[in-house]
Amino acid sequence: MKEHSVTIYDISEQAGVSIATVSRVLNNSSNVSEATKKKVLNAIKDTGYTPNAFARGLGLNTMKTIGILAADSSDLYLAKAIYYFEEELRASGYDSLLCCTGYAHKDKKAAIELLISKKVDGIILVGSNFVYPDVADNKYILSAAEKVPVMLLNAELEGNNIYCVSSDDYKSMYKATGELIGSGFRNILYFYNSLSYSGALKERGYRDAMKDAGINVVERQLQFFEGTREDVHGMAAQLEKTASTGLKFNAVIAADDTLALSAVKYALSKGYKIPEEFSVIGYNNSMLATCSEPELTSIDNKLETLCQKLTATLMGVLSGEEMPKKTIFGGEIVTRGTTKGGTSK
Amino acid sequence: MKEHSVTIYDISEQAGVSIATVSRVLNNSSNVSEATKKKVLNAIKDTGYTPNAFARGLGLNTMKTIGILAADSSDLYLAKAIYYFEEELRASGYDSLLCCTGYAHKDKKAAIELLISKKVDGIILVGSNFVYPDVADNKYILSAAEKVPVMLLNAELEGNNIYCVSSDDYKSMYKATGELIGSGFRNILYFYNSLSYSGALKERGYRDAMKDAGINVVERQLQFFEGTREDVHGMAAQLEKTASTGLKFNAVIAADDTLALSAVKYALSKGYKIPEEFSVIGYNNSMLATCSEPELTSIDNKLETLCQKLTATLMGVLSGEEMPKKTIFGGEIVTRGTTKGGTSK
Repeated sequence: MKEHSVTIYDISEQAGVSIATVSRVLNNSSNVSEATKKKVLNAIKDTGYTPNAFARGLGLNTMKTIGILAADSSDLYLAKAIYYFEEELRASGYDSLLCCTGYAHKDKKAAIELLISKKVDGIILVGSNFVYPDVADNKYILSAAEKVPVMLLNAELEGNNIYCVSSDDYKSMYKATGELIGSGFRNILYFYNSLSYSGALKERGYRDAMKDAGINVVERQLQFFEGTREDVHGMAAQLEKTASTGLKFNAVIAADDTLALSAVKYALSKGYKIPEEFSVIGYNNSMLATCSEPELTSIDNKLETLCQKLTATLMGVLSGEEMPKKTIFGGEIVTRGTTKGGTSK
Repeated sequence: MKEHSVTIYDISEQAGVSIATVSRVLNNSSNVSEATKKKVLNAIKDTGYTPNAFARGLGLNTMKTIGILAADSSDLYLAKAIYYFEEELRASGYDSLLCCTGYAHKDKKAAIELLISKKVDGIILVGSNFVYPDVADNKYILSAAEKVPVMLLNAELEGNNIYCVSSDDYKSMYKATGELIGSGFRNILYFYNSLSYSGALKERGYRDAMKDAGINVVERQLQFFEGTREDVHGMAAQLEKTASTGLKFNAVIAADDTLALSAVKYALSKGYKIPEEFSVIGYNNSMLATCSEPELTSIDNKLETLCQKLTATLMGVLSGEEMPKKTIFGGEIVTRGTTKGGTSK
């Protein structure tokens, strides 16, 4: 970040052109002849001029900075993703700037514009909540992609200069539901708290696995939790209430580990033996999985691999290589104490 | 982020001065007479010129952006702090840019310089790891404070344009240790994993409470965990190993909830009855406290209040008000199932 003492005035003198002309070249203006442009660029080279952040931002040089957007850095999964991205980017010689946007569309739009005004070389959108079902709502992503490559983690959007890396949430949830069914459970509750793109895939995985096993699903078996992301007690209370209305369930498959943890709390409070009488599978294989007693069986969607792949793809794009527009990894069920076959620690 | 079509060339014409002079004014150069400066600023006003990000960054206007630095966004406590800051700043009409620096000094220095090059209006350092015991290592903070106000959360550093908001970690730890002693425990282990400024305060709180109660502390009673922050199993194994070497302890006071959670795991694996035979107090009152079984008694250091106060202080500084250089809040013990008097949920 140290700035060289050579200034735009020295360049002007050296090149024998006006400051306005140097400025036009730095601004990449079209009102400059190629010959003049060459003179200025040579002067820049000769004087050893280190363009300042401004000039570098104007395309003369890259800032080597990537903008990262995430809705909420205090979400365990998003926080982990941010951590991996920063690590990968630093290793690739890039700085990163993060904006935590919240979940409102206008704040996401403002944040992406802020990062572009800061002259980032690329943008990473962390989490599927950035892509909306309504095409018009995704215009802010397409606009950004006109300026810099946009990378989506766990989301899909077609467009020039847009690249997607995701985990196969549909298949993972299908497999996990199938595992519970295979262990003899039929009254399986699906517990979720996100209506995002990946949330929709997970739900479909659950529904299809139940259907393919010939098990009828009633809508009340899909429980949506509206409270805050960390409210384990509120979640357990909702399960309690659901059971008290007469819906029978002895297994819970959750779209997130916190929800799964609340199911463990609920089952213990009811005196169920886990995993024999009551089984639970979580999602994300977060640190909560090992904090729970018994420890949680959870779906590992290979977040670190996804983040590495996405960063590598971005680096390829930035160096002009042809990169895949869409990369999908499979998930893995990590079996612990809340399902049969796991070690009840 | 939309840029007005009026350019620096129009200003030059309107003010009747050269582009170089306009540039000097925008650069806040001292080589411009007050009269000329006034002419240029009037022209800017008259033409309705909206300075672009560059010009605004040069002091003509504010970018209304605050830079936030945190070592690691995937740390539960830091992530929560970042979340509160972003929320407070957004409510105050400010954008924020976050750099996750890691724990290396050179990366912290580079990140603070990056944010300053992005023309932020102020900088928030989240967490006590940014301040070093060796004064020379803190030069990077003092240099930043020459340009913009620097706000420290849970750390202390004397200097112009530096403001500190923290929780009284010493007193909180002193009180919590005293509570265990009051419940009849004497063999209390102190379990920690950070050597930061606030870490040192916590340790001193533990030591002084033990000393004031006339209890001798042997050095092995202070167990430092070197592994990764989320390795609950590794932490529990260290407690197991410590006990196997003959050191007796039936209470653990931890500098972090994850460490406390591992103590619960250890105690349960040994068949101790919690809290009667074995008590545990954690720190930060994070979501882990309610995830554990039994739930953790933990010290709430009022993070949200700290973040609100720090943001309010920064806003005061930015609008030219005289603000306190140092603000300290007290913590609070939230009693749950791992100490006597708590409800064993």
